[in-house]
Amino acid sequence: MTAEVVSVGTELLLGQTIDTHAATIALILADCGISCTRRQTVGDNLDRIVDVLREALARVDVVVAIGGLGPTADDLTRDAIARALDDRLERIPEFEEKLRKMVAYRKLPWNDSLARQADKPTSAQFVGNPNGSAPGLICEKNGKVVIALPGPRGEFNPMADGPVREYLERLQSGQVIHSRTLKICGMGESQVEALIRPLMDSANPTVAPYAHPGEVHLRLTAKAPSRDEADRLIDPVHRQIYEILGDAIFGTDSTTLEESVVGLLRGRQHSNPADDLPEYATLSVAESMTGGGLGKRITNVPGSSDVFAGGAVAYRLEAKSGLLKIDPATIKQFGPVSSEVAAEMARAIRLKLSTSYGVAITGNAGPTSDVGDEPVGLVYIAVAFPGGCEVQEHRFRGERAEIRRRATQAALVALRAELLKK
Amino acid sequence: MTAEVVSVGTELLLGQTIDTHAATIALILADCGISCTRRQTVGDNLDRIVDVLREALARVDVVVAIGGLGPTADDLTRDAIARALDDRLERIPEFEEKLRKMVAYRKLPWNDSLARQADKPTSAQFVGNPNGSAPGLICEKNGKVVIALPGPRGEFNPMADGPVREYLERLQSGQVIHSRTLKICGMGESQVEALIRPLMDSANPTVAPYAHPGEVHLRLTAKAPSRDEADRLIDPVHRQIYEILGDAIFGTDSTTLEESVVGLLRGRQHSNPADDLPEYATLSVAESMTGGGLGKRITNVPGSSDVFAGGAVAYRLEAKSGLLKIDPATIKQFGPVSSEVAAEMARAIRLKLSTSYGVAITGNAGPTSDVGDEPVGLVYIAVAFPGGCEVQEHRFRGERAEIRRRATQAALVALRAELLKK
Repeated sequence: MTAEVVSVGTELLLGQTIDTHAATIALILADCGISCTRRQTVGDNLDRIVDVLREALARVDVVVAIGGLGPTADDLTRDAIARALDDRLERIPEFEEKLRKMVAYRKLPWNDSLARQADKPTSAQFVGNPNGSAPGLICEKNGKVVIALPGPRGEFNPMADGPVREYLERLQSGQVIHSRTLKICGMGESQVEALIRPLMDSANPTVAPYAHPGEVHLRLTAKAPSRDEADRLIDPVHRQIYEILGDAIFGTDSTTLEESVVGLLRGRQHSNPADDLPEYATLSVAESMTGGGLGKRITNVPGSSDVFAGGAVAYRLEAKSGLLKIDPATIKQFGPVSSEVAAEMARAIRLKLSTSYGVAITGNAGPTSDVGDEPVGLVYIAVAFPGGCEVQEHRFRGERAEIRRRATQAALVALRAELLKK
Repeated sequence: MTAEVVSVGTELLLGQTIDTHAATIALILADCGISCTRRQTVGDNLDRIVDVLREALARVDVVVAIGGLGPTADDLTRDAIARALDDRLERIPEFEEKLRKMVAYRKLPWNDSLARQADKPTSAQFVGNPNGSAPGLICEKNGKVVIALPGPRGEFNPMADGPVREYLERLQSGQVIHSRTLKICGMGESQVEALIRPLMDSANPTVAPYAHPGEVHLRLTAKAPSRDEADRLIDPVHRQIYEILGDAIFGTDSTTLEESVVGLLRGRQHSNPADDLPEYATLSVAESMTGGGLGKRITNVPGSSDVFAGGAVAYRLEAKSGLLKIDPATIKQFGPVSSEVAAEMARAIRLKLSTSYGVAITGNAGPTSDVGDEPVGLVYIAVAFPGGCEVQEHRFRGERAEIRRRATQAALVALRAELLKK
């Protein structure tokens, strides 16, 4: 069974509104085992909406239209569906009465255009809308289904995830399409692909790589009669990929890299000589070019105060000396963007806050070099740990925001590698 | 002149990624006076991409394809465009050489599939991609134009808003739809709307309010034969709104609140008693619950090192005493989430880094209270300045990320208010 989604609204075509509903309904269709093969967006223009609906009906079994069900003159989806299905519109007097009562109850003035919401194509059933006045529609005709839902978020979401989901599950009595995403750091997309190439021919689940800044995601997608059975198809392929990529996989689905790092710190208990009780490993950070972005990412994780003490944002030179007591001679000798200064920053914050690990970032995020002749994108990451300190050099490309994001990503990856040792 | 947008990617059809690029390119098309009449999304399937492109080319003058230009086997847009235009793909050896150098410079392993990015349809010109390896394409054939841009955000945005916008402006010399957005802080949407109500009936430009977390945006949109003439229609309405809202407007269009604050610090010169030369006013921050998010926002601004020295991330209690020397007795007496501790943090970091202003945030971002009985969402913001310190209490609602974002927003608004005084 196949479906297409048609989003209606000139504000979408003009780019003034971002279409999140289309993604919401796509996830629901996938859950119900219905393949969404195309998505279209069309403005508030009757002829064009009719064309798009007719074309979609010629290709697929189910068409879901979103938006254009309100009472105003540019709400044309009802009329377009009636034309595309060769139906006529009929007014449902009981529903008009209900609308009049609703309007009176909310002490709003009645307006004849409001009654348009009581119209439906002859082959349609209304879908109740507990949060608004415009009902949805489900039309069944000639073996095809057209579903229409109103656009306002507070109305759309509960209708899509409630009665429409139930309808689609009944319609398609079998397959669900279920995905699991494996998240990988410290490797590029083509490197990952080269390693798991034989698995990419798998048909059920399919295996598809997606590149994100500093991460690669592998999506394993299975079709099966139930979510549990889809999971059972995915499990062995997940295991095979784990055997190949190992700890490069930092988590699945919604897990973030910062959650993975906080989890590893929690897992790595160290002895506190003061009271001889095991504690979590702890972390502090010293940031220059990221300005607090690394601390911000770590503290995105609820409960990160178990392991994260805090840090210094040593953006200008005087903060590097004032907060971290970095020797000005070191800065003068090697430059603020150097492996030596990164190492000193990491060691200094680790000692200052008495944490197990100290991570430092110094570099040049651009657009111009603030501090010297270092090229834009040159970044040093230092991880200080009990008994040592390791420094990496990176050369990132992109705009300032991208370079800063990649720098915090590389710092988390480096810390994670250190935490996974021994 | 008409256009359609084709977004390519199975992750979009499955609803796992929300398509924001389609809206970005739609805004650019509108700016250039090109009507976007339809938008389509299709998965990583060669035949379907070819069908969608051919159908679009039959209807409109310009087709913009987004995504599917990377090096992996499911990147099929280049091949699909060549087929849809009855072109063949040719490999450009100079570009392959460039790719090899780029990969070598970044110390990544070479992989033959990377060379696919050096392929182009015969009628295409490359569009340079300064932030990634896959170039864009502009193809002109039989009076039609096909533009293709890569999907990663850091690559797509500058290419769409740079060379592609310029190309489209040259292509279409008629009406432009041009908007200017006025950005307002420190007021709610209904407050803004009540004050400017009479101006909202304006037809050209139209005036529309949009609520964002901690900000209200007013979009003024004019239609005119040129961008300059649209600006001339917008200017008087902008002036009228400024007369009503004054300094509550912190900037226009892409200006961020942090840019506005950095600009005010730059504008406020203060005498440096040491060498008697005027300097910029300077800023330091002390953050608890935001973990570095305030410093990160300020250093989003290129050149912010002129005014931003750095700061302390005093997440756990030991960092509040270790980095800022906050008296443990104060913390014990009033609690870490208190007006008193916020004020001490702001004063301490200002003195420590010898800056004109010191801003501190302490609060409880949830989901549970880490530190005591303070309710989730309770936040204190302190601004220390030459001769004093002001503290505000806020109670924010929402999830952790929302509360943290609102806290940095409130800190910037409070600092801005202080900078606008006298």
